[in-house]
Amino acid sequence: MISSKQESSAGFVPLYNVRTDLALEARELVQQQTAAEIPGITSENLQENGIAINRLEIETEQASRQLGKSEGRYLTLEVPGLRRKDAALQDRVSEIMARELVRFLRLPENLDQSVLVVGLGNWNVTPDSLGPKVIEDLLVTRHAVAAGQKILGDGFRAVCALSPGVLGTTGIETGEIIAALAQRVKPALVIVIDALAARRLERLHTTIQVADSGISPGSGVGNNRLGINRQTVGAPTVAIGVPTVVDASTIAGEAFDALADHFKKDARGHALGNVMKDFDWEQRRLLITEVLEPYAGGRLMVTPKETDAFVEDMAYIISAALNSALHPRVHSEGSEKYLQ
Amino acid sequence: MISSKQESSAGFVPLYNVRTDLALEARELVQQQTAAEIPGITSENLQENGIAINRLEIETEQASRQLGKSEGRYLTLEVPGLRRKDAALQDRVSEIMARELVRFLRLPENLDQSVLVVGLGNWNVTPDSLGPKVIEDLLVTRHAVAAGQKILGDGFRAVCALSPGVLGTTGIETGEIIAALAQRVKPALVIVIDALAARRLERLHTTIQVADSGISPGSGVGNNRLGINRQTVGAPTVAIGVPTVVDASTIAGEAFDALADHFKKDARGHALGNVMKDFDWEQRRLLITEVLEPYAGGRLMVTPKETDAFVEDMAYIISAALNSALHPRVHSEGSEKYLQ
Amino acid sequence: MISSKQESSAGFVPLYNVRTDLALEARELVQQQTAAEIPGITSENLQENGIAINRLEIETEQASRQLGKSEGRYLTLEVPGLRRKDAALQDRVSEIMARELVRFLRLPENLDQSVLVVGLGNWNVTPDSLGPKVIEDLLVTRHAVAAGQKILGDGFRAVCALSPGVLGTTGIETGEIIAALAQRVKPALVIVIDALAARRLERLHTTIQVADSGISPGSGVGNNRLGINRQTVGAPTVAIGVPTVVDASTIAGEAFDALADHFKKDARGHALGNVMKDFDWEQRRLLITEVLEPYAGGRLMVTPKETDAFVEDMAYIISAALNSALHPRVHSEGSEKYLQ
Amino acid sequence: MISSKQESSAGFVPLYNVRTDLALEARELVQQQTAAEIPGITSENLQENGIAINRLEIETEQASRQLGKSEGRYLTLEVPGLRRKDAALQDRVSEIMARELVRFLRLPENLDQSVLVVGLGNWNVTPDSLGPKVIEDLLVTRHAVAAGQKILGDGFRAVCALSPGVLGTTGIETGEIIAALAQRVKPALVIVIDALAARRLERLHTTIQVADSGISPGSGVGNNRLGINRQTVGAPTVAIGVPTVVDASTIAGEAFDALADHFKKDARGHALGNVMKDFDWEQRRLLITEVLEPYAGGRLMVTPKETDAFVEDMAYIISAALNSALHPRVHSEGSEKYLQ
Repeated sequence: MISSKQESSAGFVPLYNVRTDLALEARELVQQQTAAEIPGITSENLQENGIAINRLEIETEQASRQLGKSEGRYLTLEVPGLRRKDAALQDRVSEIMARELVRFLRLPENLDQSVLVVGLGNWNVTPDSLGPKVIEDLLVTRHAVAAGQKILGDGFRAVCALSPGVLGTTGIETGEIIAALAQRVKPALVIVIDALAARRLERLHTTIQVADSGISPGSGVGNNRLGINRQTVGAPTVAIGVPTVVDASTIAGEAFDALADHFKKDARGHALGNVMKDFDWEQRRLLITEVLEPYAGGRLMVTPKETDAFVEDMAYIISAALNSALHPRVHSEGSEKYLQ
Repeated sequence: MISSKQESSAGFVPLYNVRTDLALEARELVQQQTAAEIPGITSENLQENGIAINRLEIETEQASRQLGKSEGRYLTLEVPGLRRKDAALQDRVSEIMARELVRFLRLPENLDQSVLVVGLGNWNVTPDSLGPKVIEDLLVTRHAVAAGQKILGDGFRAVCALSPGVLGTTGIETGEIIAALAQRVKPALVIVIDALAARRLERLHTTIQVADSGISPGSGVGNNRLGINRQTVGAPTVAIGVPTVVDASTIAGEAFDALADHFKKDARGHALGNVMKDFDWEQRRLLITEVLEPYAGGRLMVTPKETDAFVEDMAYIISAALNSALHPRVHSEGSEKYLQ
Repeated sequence: MISSKQESSAGFVPLYNVRTDLALEARELVQQQTAAEIPGITSENLQENGIAINRLEIETEQASRQLGKSEGRYLTLEVPGLRRKDAALQDRVSEIMARELVRFLRLPENLDQSVLVVGLGNWNVTPDSLGPKVIEDLLVTRHAVAAGQKILGDGFRAVCALSPGVLGTTGIETGEIIAALAQRVKPALVIVIDALAARRLERLHTTIQVADSGISPGSGVGNNRLGINRQTVGAPTVAIGVPTVVDASTIAGEAFDALADHFKKDARGHALGNVMKDFDWEQRRLLITEVLEPYAGGRLMVTPKETDAFVEDMAYIISAALNSALHPRVHSEGSEKYLQ
Repeated sequence: MISSKQESSAGFVPLYNVRTDLALEARELVQQQTAAEIPGITSENLQENGIAINRLEIETEQASRQLGKSEGRYLTLEVPGLRRKDAALQDRVSEIMARELVRFLRLPENLDQSVLVVGLGNWNVTPDSLGPKVIEDLLVTRHAVAAGQKILGDGFRAVCALSPGVLGTTGIETGEIIAALAQRVKPALVIVIDALAARRLERLHTTIQVADSGISPGSGVGNNRLGINRQTVGAPTVAIGVPTVVDASTIAGEAFDALADHFKKDARGHALGNVMKDFDWEQRRLLITEVLEPYAGGRLMVTPKETDAFVEDMAYIISAALNSALHPRVHSEGSEKYLQ
């Protein structure tokens, strides 16, 4: 998306052919390539009980361009332990995520001001089904709150939700559907849930990103064509995502790099390592395209075989965290009591 | 919904406690009770290959009140043979329905003017899942037509679709969601698909109703609280429905009536038959409520055990008919070629 | 199933036309009709925190015939409060059910002796989907235990599971499939989960029955044609069931009875009440058949509209109770930690 | 699975690190590496209307070892056009597949001798759901044929079916479940349907393989641990499969090879090309493992994003072909009439 020549002259290194929806990885990559701090970014790290919390802010347009990520705040939880099905850890992540969400979302005190939660993605494609699965377990209350319903009692915010499906099944851009609904419902906040693509395999199903910049065009497993953010939706839009796939081209690129590294270490191959160093990014990109071309390159995703169980777990964690962060009553009484 | 006293004085017979979403049945009931033609209604019947076609029009406000159905045109197909899984008959019904839809819908010649099809109902409740199932098999083209996409070729109308779910899962009235979307997409026509309640068991899964008055408040298996029609949606709205349930109170009422009939025929019971004749509608209603009360009466539905297979079949018939009626190309080449 | 004449002469009252899969209801009915204790039955009642526990034993063949239920032990939990979605109550029911199951099942101490759990019923028909839904949340361990897998650790029993579907989708009697599998796997115990039919609407989704006599022919929502029990399966077979439907003929019958009761109380209708008293069971049965005939009477079920949410809740309760009762480790650490 | 040293001394080239479940690809690979015909294999090719038909027979043990595929007959249909959703082509493939299946399966004339069709794989993982989806559309008749049921009429074979799930959800090896059932049902033939892994991306969702050797240990998307074949099942076993994934390690390997090829063509890189030629297979394998290791290498699959629609289409084609090949009546009247 960024031509190498142009950017080189601008003095910073582009993310050649690496697809990642995580701001954390974009920063990592740029730092790796420039071996220097990036100006215009603040970052804070916490470690709690096996959960790494990163609070990142992209503050300048230049930093935004360098990372290929929108300006704004990013909250990232990394929990490598989630790969082993550990229910106690899942609950801990939910609780910490709820606490961090309360801090991040800055919700209005008035519980009648509604929040619209939208589950993006395709029900029928396992690694793209995170959004609809979160919606399934969400405590939806707007109709009850509006009716002043006595059953629920106090302490519940007006929450509404939709899983609209994807462009191929609706014929309407998902951003358009959300904007139409937001115009009607007038939510104080829109939260969109989506499955993401990462660069690093170890991040699949172990990382959660929360971003107040919404969703960028072309991101997500389903590659949303338009962005979904404050501009397109007409209301503050926070995106919550979990990487569930790596692009096949990323894997092919990593294979190239591993090979180059191998030759660099090898005495005999040293000359070769140098040749490869010169091997330019455009050639590299063309070659990857060639490898994947039989399948119209770029539309291929790499995902673990157990993706169904992992998506299920992450959906549970996120909906528990949302229920707790959105509804003060759930927060005080514990989320498992209200999971549907 | 209509108090008996008031209406009796007005001179016509109300549909005491009988719940039906079919205009055909409402008319049948009133005729049965009044033993006379109802003014303000025109009706036309055709019989074709085991398919009974009825074209009904409710033309006056008085007829509308008498039937408890909105003014407008109603097309009804009755196909008792559908209860036996006969694939050839299914195809015939699809074709005839497509032909009747073309006549009924009066679609604009300009294929760029979009049609929005909405599948009402709850995915997770079998007899309420007709709408979402129809959407699954619908040929959705708006995004391709808008992009002037060359892949599709000519002869396709811009069709878009949504299965929004129900109030309990979204927190938003379905009518609101459709209105919001219609305001954005500006469709020439909105078509809503819904599962209905009938009075007669023999009509379950064998009858299709098309109505240009949209959907009335309180109708459908899921009891939509607001109506979904031209007024609420802001665009012409046609409803397509299939009865998949009978209300439990209807069954209880039929049991009463069968008993009364039985005694009327019986010599000894003749006196009783007379007593029952006096047994007034209010007492009858109270008694039925009492029988069903342990389950908050009226929220109970009667449905056949094989409902899943029947709903599947009817969804297939309707989506094939819609694909053919909406897309001139599908109409000319045969719908099965385009079923997804 | 029992002709009235024959049984009357035998001196006890048959369950005219009332379909129930609950031993508790069968007993209730017979007691109601005979106004006397039934010999050959022992029964014990406990009340705990809004949960009524009944331990029933049918000890003689005569009692078995009178109730129309197999000899054996029946454990029934009644929890009217479950109709209001109360997560804390659900957890309490799971815990008490686990405790009662441990007592009821008398499992072998050797954890290597496997237990086979079978989810009966049809995935695609909501009120018949209890069995498959329980299996989804079950902690399946046989392959890990067999491999001496170190990941799990100690304290897990070898549990295996299957949701075979129904006769219409497999072409094989479910009892045959289980018997075939049991012959191979040699489980110490087979547990089958099934959705049941009740007589009383208030029992829908609020009652759990555990029976060591397995499943009788013709019972369950799907009407299993053969029984599933020790004889047919070749291993001890315990059935766990929840009523999710009432037969339409039961509702029609209740309507008759309510009408008769009404007239009995009414001065003017007293004569009628008497006539109805004479109105014999055969006439009553014929009339009900007539009411429901348009839909091949008896294959119709009455179920609440919110059946999906209730089935989901009951499946959660049962799988949590089973995980705890079957695996000592889960029992000691709390079941929610191991729910998948 | 084959150590390189040992096999090199035996004089033929092993399939280093390339995973394919297709006999056709295994043969292609070996021919590519040896640049010679493989003894012990007969092969016949047909081209019909955009459908390439290959009939392959592996006749000797040596050929079997060289290809890493069991001795037996393999029928392969390759239809690149299926990637474009062309319903007319789908029907043509179904018809030709039905014709070829009749020839391949050599079914008994007696229609009472049953055929057991088993859908392998995991419902909840899209690219592994082919088997269960085929079963959904299969015309199951064993119970009706057994009952001498008059509804169906003549011309139907006794077909039964099961989708047992996977080891992780049952705790029982799928081969064990099938063997247990086969022992009881005594089918004349067992047909298993499974999703496969291919080497070539262009074969995904465009290729169907039928093999009378059943399923090899470790093959399929879900990596069945034991084989499923005549020996393990106790009845003749035919496997029908469609590749829906490529192993991530295959993609990484292809990236290596593309790079080597690139340098071979390049003047400057010629030296490098030579070095890479020496770069031995063990090093290559280690490097690939390293690239994929963060995700416990080898459990990663590459699949197109539209996998859901393609799996749906292939399931439709296969079930239509099976219905026609198994039931003479469907064959003569056209399969679409009997698709459920």
